[in-house]
Amino acid sequence: MTHEYIPDLPRLEKQLIAIMARAADRIKHSPFAIDEKDGPANIVTTNDVACQQFLYGELGPLIPQAGFLGEENLQDVAHPLLWVIDPIDGTANYARGIADCAISVALVQGKTPLVGAVYNIFTGEVFSATRGGGARRNGKPISVSGRDFSAGLLCTAMSVYNKSLARTCDKIIYDAYMECNDVRRFGTCALELCYLAAGRCDLYFEMRVFPWDYAAGYLILQEAGGVLTGFGGEEVSFTRPIMLIGANNRKNYDRLRAIVEKHMDHLPYTE
Amino acid sequence: MTHEYIPDLPRLEKQLIAIMARAADRIKHSPFAIDEKDGPANIVTTNDVACQQFLYGELGPLIPQAGFLGEENLQDVAHPLLWVIDPIDGTANYARGIADCAISVALVQGKTPLVGAVYNIFTGEVFSATRGGGARRNGKPISVSGRDFSAGLLCTAMSVYNKSLARTCDKIIYDAYMECNDVRRFGTCALELCYLAAGRCDLYFEMRVFPWDYAAGYLILQEAGGVLTGFGGEEVSFTRPIMLIGANNRKNYDRLRAIVEKHMDHLPYTE
Repeated sequence: MTHEYIPDLPRLEKQLIAIMARAADRIKHSPFAIDEKDGPANIVTTNDVACQQFLYGELGPLIPQAGFLGEENLQDVAHPLLWVIDPIDGTANYARGIADCAISVALVQGKTPLVGAVYNIFTGEVFSATRGGGARRNGKPISVSGRDFSAGLLCTAMSVYNKSLARTCDKIIYDAYMECNDVRRFGTCALELCYLAAGRCDLYFEMRVFPWDYAAGYLILQEAGGVLTGFGGEEVSFTRPIMLIGANNRKNYDRLRAIVEKHMDHLPYTE
Repeated sequence: MTHEYIPDLPRLEKQLIAIMARAADRIKHSPFAIDEKDGPANIVTTNDVACQQFLYGELGPLIPQAGFLGEENLQDVAHPLLWVIDPIDGTANYARGIADCAISVALVQGKTPLVGAVYNIFTGEVFSATRGGGARRNGKPISVSGRDFSAGLLCTAMSVYNKSLARTCDKIIYDAYMECNDVRRFGTCALELCYLAAGRCDLYFEMRVFPWDYAAGYLILQEAGGVLTGFGGEEVSFTRPIMLIGANNRKNYDRLRAIVEKHMDHLPYTE
């Protein structure tokens, strides 16, 4: 039997948000330099690194037995209790002064996120959730929309780090677009999952995303009543990049998943 | 010879922004009902109508000889001096609580916008310009980016009010995406033109937009050093819906225009 750590989740949510607010203040208006990771489409700024270091230093003492998995070379995936951190989700937006970017942090036990928050760096809007305790925007309860597929807004992207996958993404997005209301591409997975949780959008598809992109957003969406899986209905996991298919309810999820599976019979990558 | 009205543009810019700020405050948090216009994809809220009425009442006394062209059935296109008004650009976002929506107002003399402003309803961020007097964000000068096409961010959409045009849009967007960095679809033409003006994005394409969507953004972009035309390089006009092709500089504009013209040899609509 696994020895499970069960923290005081409501208290931890408040502590986490307070730390994220301080992290956001530090990088909101401070200058930065830009580096490329594996090409010009995948950039990192010195503020991504500084923000992750700050979170590492502040979150560590909260739960000494927890490990860390962070976007900027902070990898400890074998640990049973993990802080999963994206110091800036939407770095391309951040570097351009576009407000759609956020800090995303979740505490994950195995396959179960216990607490998570997504903090918009420029506006201070914060989405958060605790396992079994509901989802919130700025502390007030949120839930998914009741919209039909035809009235739905789809948040999506076209696999910018792997453009060899773009053609298939494009076919899926086009077909979904012709059946729903419209498409948005804000350029931040973490915030888009929160927008789905808050009823601002209704459908979500992305071909290949990383645990730090969706760990917090997944919990927030689940707690708001939404549906999110990997390819083929696979349960969301936190050890490798996956596809995400999401919706405000099971019926719309099934319809979106059928469109995805019309264009793909297997996931076109392994890692 | 036409009798031209030449107002004190810097003073008019300040007056206009003050009126728009009051208009935004009135609709920022007030309840509204939603109506459909020519289908569920094209909605109007009671706050669109209320905002336009407020602007009409406030702008009229500023220049008694000016006419009005507004999105919500306010049409006086034959007038040589026109206030061109979108009370809410991005109504679908507004109705969902997504912050990418704005009031857009320009004073246009024939084919020449004299002053224009785009005011984000939720954040209060305001972009503005005067003919020959430069472009500003919150009062401070802005200019387009110096990015190459390959590093460029394209803002675009897929003709949501006329989905019969979506296939061609999709081909153009896909080809451009494979040559540039990434695509964004925020769902507001007025703000996206301002993002291009402010160097946040670098390329712009939309198949069919209306004068109230782009009148202010066009001036702001021009004054920030960018390029914007209709199909085939046609000068932007204000009497009917047109295509928009825009970029941070002439070289990137030419490249984007070549992609558009690869997929179209004529504009697939007349009005």
